[in-house]
Parts: sequence; C-alpha cells; structure tokens
Amino acid sequence: MKRLAILGSTGSIGQSTLSIVEQFPERYQVATLAAGRNIDEVFAQSVRWRPRLVSLATEELAAQLQARLHESGITGIEVVHGTAGTVVCSTRADVDFVVSAIVGVSGLEATHAAILAGKPVGLANKECMVAAGEILTAAARKHQVPILPIDSEHNAVHQCLRVGTHAEVKTIWLTASGGPFRQLPIDQFKSITPEQALKHPTWVMGRRITIDSATMLNKGLEVIEACRLFDVPPSQVRVTVHPQSTVHSMVEYIDGSILAQISVTDMRLPILYALAWPERPASSLTFDLAALRHLDFEQPDMERFPCLRLAFEAAAKGGTHCIALNAADEVAVEAFLERRIPFTGIADTIEKVLASTPEAHPATIAEVLAADREARLIAHALLA
Amino acid sequence: MKRLAILGSTGSIGQSTLSIVEQFPERYQVATLAAGRNIDEVFAQSVRWRPRLVSLATEELAAQLQARLHESGITGIEVVHGTAGTVVCSTRADVDFVVSAIVGVSGLEATHAAILAGKPVGLANKECMVAAGEILTAAARKHQVPILPIDSEHNAVHQCLRVGTHAEVKTIWLTASGGPFRQLPIDQFKSITPEQALKHPTWVMGRRITIDSATMLNKGLEVIEACRLFDVPPSQVRVTVHPQSTVHSMVEYIDGSILAQISVTDMRLPILYALAWPERPASSLTFDLAALRHLDFEQPDMERFPCLRLAFEAAAKGGTHCIALNAADEVAVEAFLERRIPFTGIADTIEKVLASTPEAHPATIAEVLAADREARLIAHALLA
Repeated sequence: MKRLAILGSTGSIGQSTLSIVEQFPERYQVATLAAGRNIDEVFAQSVRWRPRLVSLATEELAAQLQARLHESGITGIEVVHGTAGTVVCSTRADVDFVVSAIVGVSGLEATHAAILAGKPVGLANKECMVAAGEILTAAARKHQVPILPIDSEHNAVHQCLRVGTHAEVKTIWLTASGGPFRQLPIDQFKSITPEQALKHPTWVMGRRITIDSATMLNKGLEVIEACRLFDVPPSQVRVTVHPQSTVHSMVEYIDGSILAQISVTDMRLPILYALAWPERPASSLTFDLAALRHLDFEQPDMERFPCLRLAFEAAAKGGTHCIALNAADEVAVEAFLERRIPFTGIADTIEKVLASTPEAHPATIAEVLAADREARLIAHALLA
Repeated sequence: MKRLAILGSTGSIGQSTLSIVEQFPERYQVATLAAGRNIDEVFAQSVRWRPRLVSLATEELAAQLQARLHESGITGIEVVHGTAGTVVCSTRADVDFVVSAIVGVSGLEATHAAILAGKPVGLANKECMVAAGEILTAAARKHQVPILPIDSEHNAVHQCLRVGTHAEVKTIWLTASGGPFRQLPIDQFKSITPEQALKHPTWVMGRRITIDSATMLNKGLEVIEACRLFDVPPSQVRVTVHPQSTVHSMVEYIDGSILAQISVTDMRLPILYALAWPERPASSLTFDLAALRHLDFEQPDMERFPCLRLAFEAAAKGGTHCIALNAADEVAVEAFLERRIPFTGIADTIEKVLASTPEAHPATIAEVLAADREARLIAHALLA
C-alpha cells in the first residue's frame, strides 16, 4: 500500500490521481492533500478520502476548512497552510510517494523538501524542473530518490529508456502536436486571438499550457525538462511534430533502434505509471491499435515557433536563462490573454527578458525564486 | 571477445553477420562456419576469417574445400560435413555464441545441440522455432540459455519486452508489410505469377520467404515463432499491416502503454542486437527520424490471406500442426514457383495437409523431423 501526498489535489492532475486511487484502493491511499483556494473541492476531497493532513493557500482558508470539517463531525484531519503547510504535506513520515502537481514555481519548495526527505516523486509540474532542475536532480541523485515524470512525453521517454543504458542513448525525440497554428500562414500569427489559441487540437488542459502549446513554448519547456530529468545536453533532444499525439515520445539508441511509446491521450496513464513503477497494473486505458490507420510526422518550423528556438537557447545556457524563459512566458501569456499584446508578442517579450538576464546558476531554491521574481519584474516592466 | 559459430554462413544472414564481425573486430571473431554447397564462397570466407572449423553439406564438398585450402597453403582449418559436422560447429568449446541461420529444418539439430551445450543462440531460422519451438524453448529454459531473435519483428518484440514483465504483456503486435498483393482485387489472386509474387515491396530476401510474404504465411510462421519465443498463446499475438516496414513490431502492456520499435530495414541491425545483447554498440545503421512523414496501418484481410488464418489455427493446435504448416508450405511454394499450382493453391495445399495431419506433440527432434517428412509426403502426394 502506497500512501500518497497529492500536491495540487484540486487541479486536473490531482483529480486524475484521485481517480486512480479510486480504481486501485488495494494499492494506494491518500495521506495528505495540498491545494490552493478551491475550498469546496478540498472539502469534498477531505470527506471522501479522509487524509491525515490538508494544506491550503492561506491561514484564512485553512480556518474555513477546519470549521466546515468540524460542522460535519469529521475529525482526525489536520489543516495547515502556505508553503510551510505544503512542505509538511510532502515530507510527513506517513507519506510514501509525492505527486507534485501544483502549477508554477509554488510547488518547488515542497517538491525539493520531499526529495530531501527521501520520498519518491511523481512530477507533473514542469516548471519545477525548468526552474530548479539542476538542484532537484542533484538532490535526487544524492538521496537516491526516483523522479517519475507525469508529463505524457517524459513518461513515454522514461519507458523507452528502460530498453538501454544512459550511455547508449543517442537522441530523445519529444513529439509535439504542433498546436492549432501548425498550418496557419505565418503572416496571420500577429492577429491570433486568445479564443483561437485556447482551442487545442488533441489535449484539454489549463489556459497557460494551452497557449504555451500554441506557441510551442510548452515543448521548449519540455526540452529543458528532458535535459534535466534524463541528464542529457540539449543537443541530444529533438522535437518532431506529430499532430495525432498518439506516439508520446521516442528514444533513439546509438545502435540505430528507436523505441516509441503509444497510448491514449489520457493523463491517468502516466499517473498510474508513475505511481506503480516499476510495476504495470492492468488498467482500462486501452488504445485501440486495431483501429490505428495513420501516424503523421513533420519537422517543427522554428520561424513559425520562435519560442521553441528560444527554449533550446535557454536550455544550452541553463540556470537563470531557463528560469527567465518560464517566468517571462507566464507574464507574457497573461498579457496576451488580457489582449495587451499580440500572439507574436509572447516570443518578443521572452526574447527581450532573456537578453536582460545575466547568466548564473542558482545553487539554492531561494536563489531560484529570486531569479524567477527578477525575470517577472523585467517582463512586467517591458509590458507596462 | 565473442567467438561465433555461424550456421548458414553463405546465406544472406550469414554474410550480414560477417559484415558485423568486420565492423566490430574488437568484439567478435569467427570460430566456426557451417554452409551447404556454395564452396567458392565458403573458401573465400575461410581465407578471410580463418575459422578453426568449417562444415559443408557432403563429404565430397568437404574434401574439395580441404584440397583448395591445402593448395593455398592455408593450415589450421578443420573441415567436416553433414548434420554431424554442423553440430560440431555449434557446440565446440571455443564457441561463445551461435548464429543459427540455416534455412529450413536442416539447422534444427545443430541449434538444439547448441542450446544443450549452453551456447547463447541468435536465431534467424524461423522454421526451427515453428517446427520444434516447444522442444527448443524448454531446453533453453532448462539450461538458462538466451535465444535472441534475429527476425526483425521478433527482435523488435524482444526490445519492447524489456519495458515490463511477462505477466504485464497483453498483446504482441507483429507488423506485416502486407506484401505486394495487399490491394489486389481478390478475384485476381488465382492468376498471380511467380514473377509478380517475387517482387517484395520493402525487403530483399530469399525466394521462399518472398513468396511466403506475398501469401502472408510468413507472418503466420512469425505468429507461431512469437508464441514459442515469448511464451504466449496465439490469442496474445496479433498482426497489423504496416506497408512501410518502419515499425518492426509492438508490445501492448496491460496498463495501456504500447512500445514500438522503429529502425531501418536492414538485417544487420537485429544481428548486431542479438550478438551484443544486452549491450548496444554504436552503429551506422541510422534511421532518419527527421525525414519520417507517414506511418500507415491497416487490419489484415483473412479472406485475402487464408495462410494467415491457417497459421493462427495451427498455432492454437501446436505440435505436428505447426510442423505440417511449414512443411506443406515449402512444398507448395516450390510447386507454385514451378507453375504446377496457382498462387491460391498454396493455401489450399496447406489446408488439405493440415486436415490430414494427426494432432501430436513431438518430444524429440527425431520425432519433429519424422512429422516434417510425413507432412511433405502428404503434400507431394496431393500435388502429384
């Protein structure tokens, strides 16, 4: 029985994780939940799953939840709050596995703390790896803690990497749907609206990640994530556009064999993989291979998707440049969604922020967070 | 340094194996060679590779080779002949790895003897597995001898199986090019000529295997081979038609993940994999993934390809039915190539031979060979 800490329990990954717990009650139980502000959902989850500890964003929200639990006659659930609360969630002695699915850098400290406490981590939060991957992977190596990627691409790579050694890997090929503008004439990119950009062809996801898919910055973040997770330089990571999102990624070996992972586009599959690794429990998440007809691939167009080029450049520099890439993008996407800048302004903003970012390699989470704040300040100033 | 026995050294797999030895002189050397009647080629190979022992089909050929070696002043090469000679080739103390690539059942005894002698085997001869797979795999398990498949499909499966346990495998998916008649109207099958059937769309191979590709009997033999090699029932093996022969096969796991292997269509790759396993040496056999555009799949049409249906039926019965399937096909293909029966007569002959074959499970190689002879007699009688 694995007792789980679910960081980001009310988000899409958190809810999918709970649906896996529901399907495999003999394998998993919920030890702790960390969420932000969605108190109704956290209350329902607490009633259903009876965790030992719940953490919310603020002291006020924590008090509200405590009151509601008390009113309902539910006892035995400790309620805490803030970053410190999330850290308690991820490090308690009764936690066997941490699902890190808080969006953005706010899950960073709790994820780092979990690794230091020797807890295996299922990582759905790519910003953690992009901003602090060097620190997290060094800690994971030191404490011999496995980090299981919950991104569908990195999860696919993790599977394909079981077929050879690290030294035998030639190239990690991340597949990309190419987003909704793969075939849009390039002169129309300036006039793309938020409504158009929020329509993703294959995955239903949050707003920022959907826009990041449309700019392919998301794939760029995944390139950086792959470099950190799998300890390879960016020259060993390539992107191929695969509109059907059926092949989730591939690994090319030095002997010439390429291994590819195929499955349904359902995040419960990588979550189950991460939770159960190295085992594979039987699931109903079946891909109908008999119905498969075509798989298409094409090379990504770096002119159409400058964010992807910027990400490869940031990956090569590492440290503050990866942090700034992620932070500047978050600020720029917000500005785009508020119609303050055009679609093409996202890449422009990132490029300018990167140009103003000194190269450095933060050695602590505090330094990472400082570099993140600094990049956001530069981005906000540029967009003001 | 692995010292190789190459059974079938003058055939296509044998020659490809020697080209791998040429490329990796620090890894492999030739200990013994077994061939049939191509004395010029065996002589050239002996001069080039200086094996300790060479075996030829007959005493007369062996004497000829000995004389030519003597004339050329080459000493230190023992020359033997016949089945006994091939067995010596595959079992000598100075052999570390046996490449079993003699076409047909004639390589069977030497392959069995190699396993009994504890030699790891790279198996390119699918008839061995079809006719005597139950005996060979039982011996391999008992003596803890790895059998590494050199068929591109089974080699792909072997790779994909490294990503989970045997109990986690749901279905082995063998890909098939579909041969040249995948889209031919079914009423024209009767008038297919040997010339048409000998044109394979993606692989250059021997005559029988090319015809077997056109009838898809070859894929049927591979289904049986997969059942034996990977210890699964035929219900866990499926075939998908994939005209590009780029995905060499796939394994579907019970959790929903499917692993696929992609590579160039070059037999040197599975040979290298088998020789080097569990390592992967760097090779120049690179697949250009950046140039990949489309992969197509379709379901095999059992009406168009009755041989495939017959193979699944034989796989379910095992034993003599698998032996008879292979033997009857070899006789029928010969008759087709000699224009004695139409293309559709191949399946008809096999079906009739199977109907006349009693179900039994030979326990020895001698019994296997007897069942093989019996099936050939029935087939010849039918075609007389």
